[in-house]
Amino acid sequence: MSRLAVLGTGLIGGSIGLAARADGAFVTVFDQDGARAERALEIGAADAVAASIADAVQGADLVFVAVPVSFIGEVVVAALDAGAPLVTDVGSVKASIVAAVGAARPHLAARYVGGHPMAGSEQDGLDGARADLFRGATWALTPSAGSESDAYATVRNQIVAFGAEVIAYEPGAHDALVAVVSHVPQLAATTLMNVAAERSADGPGLFRLAAGGFRDMTRIAASHPAIWADICAENRDAIIDALDDYIESLREVRTVVDTGDREGLLALLSEARAARRSLPVGATTAGPLAEMRVPIPDRPGMLAEVTTLAGALGINISDIETAHSAEGREGVLILVVTLADAPRFEDALRERGFQPAWLELA
Amino acid sequence: MSRLAVLGTGLIGGSIGLAARADGAFVTVFDQDGARAERALEIGAADAVAASIADAVQGADLVFVAVPVSFIGEVVVAALDAGAPLVTDVGSVKASIVAAVGAARPHLAARYVGGHPMAGSEQDGLDGARADLFRGATWALTPSAGSESDAYATVRNQIVAFGAEVIAYEPGAHDALVAVVSHVPQLAATTLMNVAAERSADGPGLFRLAAGGFRDMTRIAASHPAIWADICAENRDAIIDALDDYIESLREVRTVVDTGDREGLLALLSEARAARRSLPVGATTAGPLAEMRVPIPDRPGMLAEVTTLAGALGINISDIETAHSAEGREGVLILVVTLADAPRFEDALRERGFQPAWLELA
Repeated sequence: MSRLAVLGTGLIGGSIGLAARADGAFVTVFDQDGARAERALEIGAADAVAASIADAVQGADLVFVAVPVSFIGEVVVAALDAGAPLVTDVGSVKASIVAAVGAARPHLAARYVGGHPMAGSEQDGLDGARADLFRGATWALTPSAGSESDAYATVRNQIVAFGAEVIAYEPGAHDALVAVVSHVPQLAATTLMNVAAERSADGPGLFRLAAGGFRDMTRIAASHPAIWADICAENRDAIIDALDDYIESLREVRTVVDTGDREGLLALLSEARAARRSLPVGATTAGPLAEMRVPIPDRPGMLAEVTTLAGALGINISDIETAHSAEGREGVLILVVTLADAPRFEDALRERGFQPAWLELA
Repeated sequence: MSRLAVLGTGLIGGSIGLAARADGAFVTVFDQDGARAERALEIGAADAVAASIADAVQGADLVFVAVPVSFIGEVVVAALDAGAPLVTDVGSVKASIVAAVGAARPHLAARYVGGHPMAGSEQDGLDGARADLFRGATWALTPSAGSESDAYATVRNQIVAFGAEVIAYEPGAHDALVAVVSHVPQLAATTLMNVAAERSADGPGLFRLAAGGFRDMTRIAASHPAIWADICAENRDAIIDALDDYIESLREVRTVVDTGDREGLLALLSEARAARRSLPVGATTAGPLAEMRVPIPDRPGMLAEVTTLAGALGINISDIETAHSAEGREGVLILVVTLADAPRFEDALRERGFQPAWLELA
């Protein structure tokens, strides 16, 4: 029976507790707000409430840090200092946290693997927690050069047990990507809502004309302000970069509309339609599978390189384990991917100097 | 038994046919694409297929024009020329159509009342048609100075029979409002999708990180391109005006994020949250009602002024009729609104020089 500690019992922490207990784990929680930790116990998201981070971490195989993003770095460090063998987190921003942990505790950083589940962001609080919140959701992990293969596999396997699909990214790449698909969309929704609200001051009839499209586009504008203020502070540069792209593209659209360039407008609308229609609905793990074996020097950095390469290619790794050689200097990463993804993953690995081999799984 | 003609049998025309037949009307349809008109007959959206606009209009009490927005003006004129006693349409843009009809047939324009149901815009085609598409939806009508009270009431009552909530706007006001809550959101979604698609060319893993918020915000980017190219052409000035507001507001957000102005960012996020949370879910017709009697000179323009005033105030008129005086020079508009809305509606009417009186309905 595995023992987990969950530090922070909001929507995500509570859902982790529920999912882990459903999976048979013993879950100890800690929250600065003691009443909230007790509430987590009441709703079945915990087996025990600890009085401190150190108490919670005691005896845990794996620690999930699920506090607001601006506090994650210090709580991860506190958990490592208290002797946690393995720590992960659920923050929406990764590079600044990974760097802070590495700088604060360089000798312990191999025990930390950054994470980010793509689920539940609009909701507030523990009362929205559900055991199946992560089922079918993507959960990003950001193994760094310091992450050990076994540490990564342990975190990954626990998350897969929650029903999530794990995909690995380099921390900076993760942050640039979520700036585009999460952070700028949030600011775009907030701004659209504010522009409409200002206009509605002139005529309260405005929102009577708001159909489903407007409701869809502004839904996330109801998100919790403090969460987004933190995220914008932690991921400022990537957000500004993506926001500049968005504003510039809107200015191009404005020109196309203003000049009556029908062909140009049709091209923009058609591109977006095609892209939206091909948006993947879930992980692409259906169909036959292949086992890929990748010999690697058994040292930090290799695991991160291979898994984040898969992430950048959009390839789902549906199983992973590391076979160590007797001498402990060489190892083999054994990965399961779809048969359809295997050839391009092999090509990409060879380009990076690896010598992979794969076979179809029966 | 009322007789309706529906010109154009796409999603909206088909749904009007289904809803009208469910309400007991006899429905004749015409479509330039004869096969589509036959398909409307097959799915129960019509009782008869006509071979021409003139044939369809023959004997109809009310004609719905549901063709693409760039053709509405000429089809309305053709229906009027064919002797239609009353014509309405379902276009997303109103001022240019109302003006075109008024200029082309000044002596017949009183028989035309512009309309716009806020429903079904993302879907394509007849196969998405449903009898209940308009149930609970807002349906804007744009009575112009030329619209007669009886004409307006007839169109309105038919639409209410479809289950929609009718609200009246001055045509230009309608167009400015939908630019903000529909047209600019469409362009914002299209642009967000295109920016993300461009970025995904660098890393296909991008969309694996797209959670529900991104899916919500880009849903309408899958809309039919030609519909939106037409709308942007017909409502260019109002769209450019609202788009400029949006771009300018995004630039302000950019500055707030870039300078790390946490308080400023929290203020923007909190305003948007409050506005989104107070977005009305449906019409506010619940609760006790009041009957308002408004003496008016029985001449064109008065009906439009009173109903669009209600629209601008966001006040739902749940019933309307006109009592004519014996001499035919004076009349009384009898309107039903919620008791809660009655006092401010009275005040606004008095400001415009009307002498309204109201009493609570038992």
